[in-house]
Amino acid sequence: MDRSSMPELARRIFASQPFTQLLGAELIEASESGVTMELPLRRELQQQHGFAHGGVISYLADNSLTFAGGMALNDDALTSEFKINYARPAKGARLRAQAEAVSVSGKQAICQCRIWSVDDDRETLCAVAQGTIVRVSGGPGGSRA
Amino acid sequence: MDRSSMPELARRIFASQPFTQLLGAELIEASESGVTMELPLRRELQQQHGFAHGGVISYLADNSLTFAGGMALNDDALTSEFKINYARPAKGARLRAQAEAVSVSGKQAICQCRIWSVDDDRETLCAVAQGTIVRVSGGPGGSRA
Amino acid sequence: MDRSSMPELARRIFASQPFTQLLGAELIEASESGVTMELPLRRELQQQHGFAHGGVISYLADNSLTFAGGMALNDDALTSEFKINYARPAKGARLRAQAEAVSVSGKQAICQCRIWSVDDDRETLCAVAQGTIVRVSGGPGGSRA
Amino acid sequence: MDRSSMPELARRIFASQPFTQLLGAELIEASESGVTMELPLRRELQQQHGFAHGGVISYLADNSLTFAGGMALNDDALTSEFKINYARPAKGARLRAQAEAVSVSGKQAICQCRIWSVDDDRETLCAVAQGTIVRVSGGPGGSRA
Repeated sequence: MDRSSMPELARRIFASQPFTQLLGAELIEASESGVTMELPLRRELQQQHGFAHGGVISYLADNSLTFAGGMALNDDALTSEFKINYARPAKGARLRAQAEAVSVSGKQAICQCRIWSVDDDRETLCAVAQGTIVRVSGGPGGSRA
Repeated sequence: MDRSSMPELARRIFASQPFTQLLGAELIEASESGVTMELPLRRELQQQHGFAHGGVISYLADNSLTFAGGMALNDDALTSEFKINYARPAKGARLRAQAEAVSVSGKQAICQCRIWSVDDDRETLCAVAQGTIVRVSGGPGGSRA
Repeated sequence: MDRSSMPELARRIFASQPFTQLLGAELIEASESGVTMELPLRRELQQQHGFAHGGVISYLADNSLTFAGGMALNDDALTSEFKINYARPAKGARLRAQAEAVSVSGKQAICQCRIWSVDDDRETLCAVAQGTIVRVSGGPGGSRA
Repeated sequence: MDRSSMPELARRIFASQPFTQLLGAELIEASESGVTMELPLRRELQQQHGFAHGGVISYLADNSLTFAGGMALNDDALTSEFKINYARPAKGARLRAQAEAVSVSGKQAICQCRIWSVDDDRETLCAVAQGTIVRVSGGPGGSRA
């Protein structure tokens, strides 16, 4: 696929994910060197103590890893597996996820991401994640197909 | 805490999670030996190809691991970290997550869960996860606090 | 490959791993339903406090996951990634690892293992692990090739 | 503990690990900003195809993560859990692991490491890992105690 058309393809895929629309996430940037997503926080995304629910953060990890892998593989991609460490409870106006591929082979990319809560001019690291992203043609499993 | 009151506490915490309400998850069972959660699938929970979004599945992993750990630790708990492997794209009427603690120490529980898509009388394994759940008093991080 | 010849192939591969010989691990059982490996502990396998080094335990996780995946895939296989949770410091006469595939597709198997320290008639769970095993033809990465 | 004495303490702990001596690993650098370890490869550390065994690489991940966490926590530390992705088969004259803490709280550090095979002036990324390191006083589990 023509690399110059990947950011546009990424935007189209992102916009066509109903769950992404339900949560209200935004694709800020998508290039070969990585992707940035943001998610404005609101009450519906919280757990019982007023912080962002872990599932909201793991959504951002899953999705940013997938898109970073897709950009690096230059193809439609899916997350085969990932691991996330929560560093701190997440609150603030929004979450920001930045993901990049750290190793790319023909069929898969190993990607890492960091997720911050952002409030005014203050960023706090909330989570880090690492996972395997594979071409859609690469196998039957994965969180997307 | 009196163990007999844990299932009731678990139900109360579950019901007080706005994100859980947004997704529509149901706590089917919660005991010392494990927890079961279900999530009816609907269009809003999909990704671009009509399957359940990976973030929906990772929410179920995160939440079922936390509750299984909380039941085992007999206390309010949070997920410190977890890892998820997606086995197959998830579709069908609903998802079912079953989680249990495989090792418990004073401060933390190592938990595992399996997630199936359920359609009529057919269950298909979609994902397996493993993670660390800690007492809320056990540390500053975690997906809940 | 003829399934009946897999246990013999597994034994041959196991015996041809120099690192496995250096550590002194033993392949106790290998079948489609899982594998069991044991490792007699000795001083050379310890860390600074007299317990088995984490790297010894992670070797057992890596190797038992790979062989369980290979048996399930009925082919030569390699570990693409895994995650391990240490439950307790490991001491005793030997370690025992039991691994099995929990999901198998054409190209990969998701496997889990548990590792116990064994002393006289007492077994103590020391670690649990989960990972992705792929056919050797399935990709360029992996801990074996 | 006086931070200036940490590198010396790290060296002492490293030298007192029998398994580290068996493998022949070297602690190249240890500071608050991270640690570097190297391991000359030899036949005894291989798997059946002549590459470094996955367990050798996971040992380096485990040990470098622990030491990076210990330096960041300024205390004796143990690895509670980690996840490793193998990027490429590892061969060459030696392996090099670099690890650092990406988030530190009072009781634990989330650390990441990368492992390269090094040959002449050529470095090839073989694996990346991420895990949780806790103070020795922080809990009963872990790969060291």
